[in-house]
Amino acid sequence: MYNFRTDLTIERSEIYKEKNHSENIDGIIIEKNKKNNTQITRVFVTNENGEKAIDKPIGDYITVDIDKVRGIDSQRIEEIANVVAEELKKVIKKHIKDNQEILVVGLGNIYVTPDALGPKVVPELEVTRHILRYMPELISKDARSVAAIAPGVLGITGIETAEVIKGIVDNIHPKLLIVIDALAAKSIQRISSSIQISDTGIVPGGGVENKRKEISQRTLGIPVIAMGIPTVVESAVLVNDCLDLFITKLQNDAQSNQYLNKIKDEDNYEEIKEALVPNDYNMIVTPKEIDELIENMKEIIAMGINIATQK
Amino acid sequence: MYNFRTDLTIERSEIYKEKNHSENIDGIIIEKNKKNNTQITRVFVTNENGEKAIDKPIGDYITVDIDKVRGIDSQRIEEIANVVAEELKKVIKKHIKDNQEILVVGLGNIYVTPDALGPKVVPELEVTRHILRYMPELISKDARSVAAIAPGVLGITGIETAEVIKGIVDNIHPKLLIVIDALAAKSIQRISSSIQISDTGIVPGGGVENKRKEISQRTLGIPVIAMGIPTVVESAVLVNDCLDLFITKLQNDAQSNQYLNKIKDEDNYEEIKEALVPNDYNMIVTPKEIDELIENMKEIIAMGINIATQK
Amino acid sequence: MYNFRTDLTIERSEIYKEKNHSENIDGIIIEKNKKNNTQITRVFVTNENGEKAIDKPIGDYITVDIDKVRGIDSQRIEEIANVVAEELKKVIKKHIKDNQEILVVGLGNIYVTPDALGPKVVPELEVTRHILRYMPELISKDARSVAAIAPGVLGITGIETAEVIKGIVDNIHPKLLIVIDALAAKSIQRISSSIQISDTGIVPGGGVENKRKEISQRTLGIPVIAMGIPTVVESAVLVNDCLDLFITKLQNDAQSNQYLNKIKDEDNYEEIKEALVPNDYNMIVTPKEIDELIENMKEIIAMGINIATQK
Amino acid sequence: MYNFRTDLTIERSEIYKEKNHSENIDGIIIEKNKKNNTQITRVFVTNENGEKAIDKPIGDYITVDIDKVRGIDSQRIEEIANVVAEELKKVIKKHIKDNQEILVVGLGNIYVTPDALGPKVVPELEVTRHILRYMPELISKDARSVAAIAPGVLGITGIETAEVIKGIVDNIHPKLLIVIDALAAKSIQRISSSIQISDTGIVPGGGVENKRKEISQRTLGIPVIAMGIPTVVESAVLVNDCLDLFITKLQNDAQSNQYLNKIKDEDNYEEIKEALVPNDYNMIVTPKEIDELIENMKEIIAMGINIATQK
Repeated sequence: MYNFRTDLTIERSEIYKEKNHSENIDGIIIEKNKKNNTQITRVFVTNENGEKAIDKPIGDYITVDIDKVRGIDSQRIEEIANVVAEELKKVIKKHIKDNQEILVVGLGNIYVTPDALGPKVVPELEVTRHILRYMPELISKDARSVAAIAPGVLGITGIETAEVIKGIVDNIHPKLLIVIDALAAKSIQRISSSIQISDTGIVPGGGVENKRKEISQRTLGIPVIAMGIPTVVESAVLVNDCLDLFITKLQNDAQSNQYLNKIKDEDNYEEIKEALVPNDYNMIVTPKEIDELIENMKEIIAMGINIATQK
Repeated sequence: MYNFRTDLTIERSEIYKEKNHSENIDGIIIEKNKKNNTQITRVFVTNENGEKAIDKPIGDYITVDIDKVRGIDSQRIEEIANVVAEELKKVIKKHIKDNQEILVVGLGNIYVTPDALGPKVVPELEVTRHILRYMPELISKDARSVAAIAPGVLGITGIETAEVIKGIVDNIHPKLLIVIDALAAKSIQRISSSIQISDTGIVPGGGVENKRKEISQRTLGIPVIAMGIPTVVESAVLVNDCLDLFITKLQNDAQSNQYLNKIKDEDNYEEIKEALVPNDYNMIVTPKEIDELIENMKEIIAMGINIATQK
Repeated sequence: MYNFRTDLTIERSEIYKEKNHSENIDGIIIEKNKKNNTQITRVFVTNENGEKAIDKPIGDYITVDIDKVRGIDSQRIEEIANVVAEELKKVIKKHIKDNQEILVVGLGNIYVTPDALGPKVVPELEVTRHILRYMPELISKDARSVAAIAPGVLGITGIETAEVIKGIVDNIHPKLLIVIDALAAKSIQRISSSIQISDTGIVPGGGVENKRKEISQRTLGIPVIAMGIPTVVESAVLVNDCLDLFITKLQNDAQSNQYLNKIKDEDNYEEIKEALVPNDYNMIVTPKEIDELIENMKEIIAMGINIATQK
Repeated sequence: MYNFRTDLTIERSEIYKEKNHSENIDGIIIEKNKKNNTQITRVFVTNENGEKAIDKPIGDYITVDIDKVRGIDSQRIEEIANVVAEELKKVIKKHIKDNQEILVVGLGNIYVTPDALGPKVVPELEVTRHILRYMPELISKDARSVAAIAPGVLGITGIETAEVIKGIVDNIHPKLLIVIDALAAKSIQRISSSIQISDTGIVPGGGVENKRKEISQRTLGIPVIAMGIPTVVESAVLVNDCLDLFITKLQNDAQSNQYLNKIKDEDNYEEIKEALVPNDYNMIVTPKEIDELIENMKEIIAMGINIATQK
């Protein structure tokens, strides 16, 4: 199986197609349309073959690509949030009824900017669970119960996030989980400008290094919608891709070249990674403006969830 | 029972003694000593009578009073942290063995400065649970397993903090809980300069308004040590106390005065509170420098816990 | 002269009237009207008598009182910002032409929550000076040049704010200065819910303790508009006022009482202050929710300035 | 002249030597020694030839390389700060007397993590100017006057930083300026683990893209010491360097290859840059842990300056 090194299903499909010089993949259906100046791509993995092809479980994966997140105003944020809400609502409706309880989980580390999106969304959400319980007179009777938590990361808590979530789910019994997560992408164009909504939860073996325990219907017993936003590209991925482009250029210019072909077929990722990662740091490629992008993305995601869960 | 309007057992004992013109309370033993320029006061509530007198359950309550927290350097922080660690260690030892697992919980709202202490301590703790589990070769074999979490507050999560903690405790089975909490005091001198360590958990009906579910051995099945730091005085408490002082002055000057006596015996708190609390705000009295004080207190508490739990 | 202990001209007029049992003050004209659910009060100090009465220089003082700043949405923020913009625009127009350069100065300490408003507004402003200079093709030719700076506070920089501003004004030559400042009020109802716009700059001897150098047309040679938002009440002010209320109550009940009258006429502020201020802290009364209020106020002020200076 | 694309003189010397296959450069003297587990490298540019070779003005450039900044404790921070202080003190002594006034300027944008170092150091400095002026009884008579300011960045203020500094210098007349600045490096090993101290100020045409006005003795009339810390590598620089390594590998393996030689001699930077920079973002390579590194570096720099200027 190819090592995709991206969490985005849309990128995985593109890579698979390119590697296999084919326009279609059995078990994968792709729909595209535009709305409010965003590009919506729906990737449906429908059978085991599709599952194997892109190493992602059967389910729906919707990507909303936004042209530009930097310097946008509150009106544009609302426009995008409405697109996100509409897509999210459809996925929610597939799994639970309008009045069933949802728990939102903001994954990530609030003290690491490109990983802070999840925890930053949580305080912006309109939670209702406690109002419905303790002050029901303040809220419409058919409001949905929404709760939200940012459980922190293993390095800070010493506890696997999946364990914390399991404890809470077993105690408060929501009917559906929405997890918000920062992703690694392959293309720097997608950093902080794509939102992926999927209903297969978070499964280890994805594109990012740090292995985590599965957060999914299989482990929690309730459907898990993951909202993922790419905030980084690994530097080794970037350089590896640039090398591929470069070799292709060499080949085009110098014509067939057995030696270069061999190098290109090899995956130079591990070698590059070793050269690039000194001092145990995770070197990432990110826009210098990532702090601002995260702020804007936070508002889009929070507004998207607020609309989709209530109205 | 008198309404103490303070979470500090030391202040409650003082109030009780003053109200009852007595130097001793049956069921309450008080020990005082000084160390590293701090004042340590140990209040032991030993029987039901003591419990009733100050409305606090049987148990140990240690208060470390620090002269000054503003503008102190890292050496002074370490000195104070050592005092806190020593007291905390004794309380821990009373309840569990040296190698038994501890979960630290930082209560409060990171987005509200005087309530942010708990969540700010958590990332400063040396958690070891994940290292012992996943990378045991990196750590001494007899290191204690420590985990830590900041679960957020009801208004943001929609979930009672006690419920979140219950879920995690049931899942990861620590043998003891340490909760860090911001308290309301009666004396502005104690704001951000006292640390109370008690082994009776957090029980509703304390001095602060917002009722919370109990977090204690009774509800969780394991001992709960509470580390509380006063960060605010309610404005109505402050004014009420000032009125008392003022009436005393009137009486001293004008001699006996039945009418004033009556007013003084009345509790004017509710009346004052109503006058003082417009727009549904909780008006608090706090030092303007509270942001800096919280930063220093955060380091003291984190270092105190790190030393007490490991070394 | 009465010690007003408030920076708000509207409160000073009220105090003066009450103290003097008069409805009118020679040299002070007051206009009131409502707009977008805000109360606008314009106090015009027109002669030396008015100046003396309330210890504020001749000039215009507009106060916009907002009913509620907590938990408001972006639409309400815009509504209020429009009222602020309209009032601000009128004051600007009185002093300079539509195309003349403005420098906005955010006073205060970003690390002290109730004092952080000024520095927090600055990054939200639409500054244009550099665009007009270096990329004029990107902006409308008749855009006004706006620059903005947050110079920090004396305790952190070691430099009087007035000196920093003088240096910049002498170097970049704006035609008008707008300074944003956190104020002390007398009434807790006004905390974070009033905005005072005045055209007399910032003059020492006002209600707040920490004396500062004057920032005004007299010292800088250009008109200075001050936008002030009350964020705190001093605790001694609060208690002093409560005592006054209390004595009035005693008098009403017990009928005339020479002794109480004497106490009331005395200013007990210094005595109370001494009792209330331990450890060199500035004890303030503030809503627990001040962090959130400052965030909302920041958006209102920034949007108000952006509209008033450009459109 | 070669385009170095690094602000570090030490890296420029290395590049020059490699490009010119020479061990020595006329006009450049390099000294190395170790202290407290840091590597100190002093590069002295002594004549015009050295100046031209590495495109840096005549002057002293000291680099302190620290092995590791992540996860270090306060004792290690102090050790490193002492090395920095010693080097800084020598440079200060070369230009002014022990009691002459210093102004420290923290350049950069506090809202952009890798650019926030300068503004974050300022509040940690022990400024004395205001104490010497307004409360001289609180401080030793021979204390040096130190002031500090973080003037913000052009994009937020609309004012060139050099103009703000000029205004302040002209007004308060310090005898020496220390500017703290985030730099771009060529090697990711140096990110947040090198400190460069130079006495030639900040001169445009350096490695970073965004051109700024000169801040130097020539423009301000007083000596300017720059303390620079690399926090990012441009992604195009990284990829360009990786390509060079790769081509070298191809050549070693396949033996001489005229075509590859040509590509290597070409500077592919602009082409790569264009491919890598979508949406007007500045894509940077940085450790994921940059927030923590900046916090540690902030303490080192602040403590280094505090020791060097006072003791």
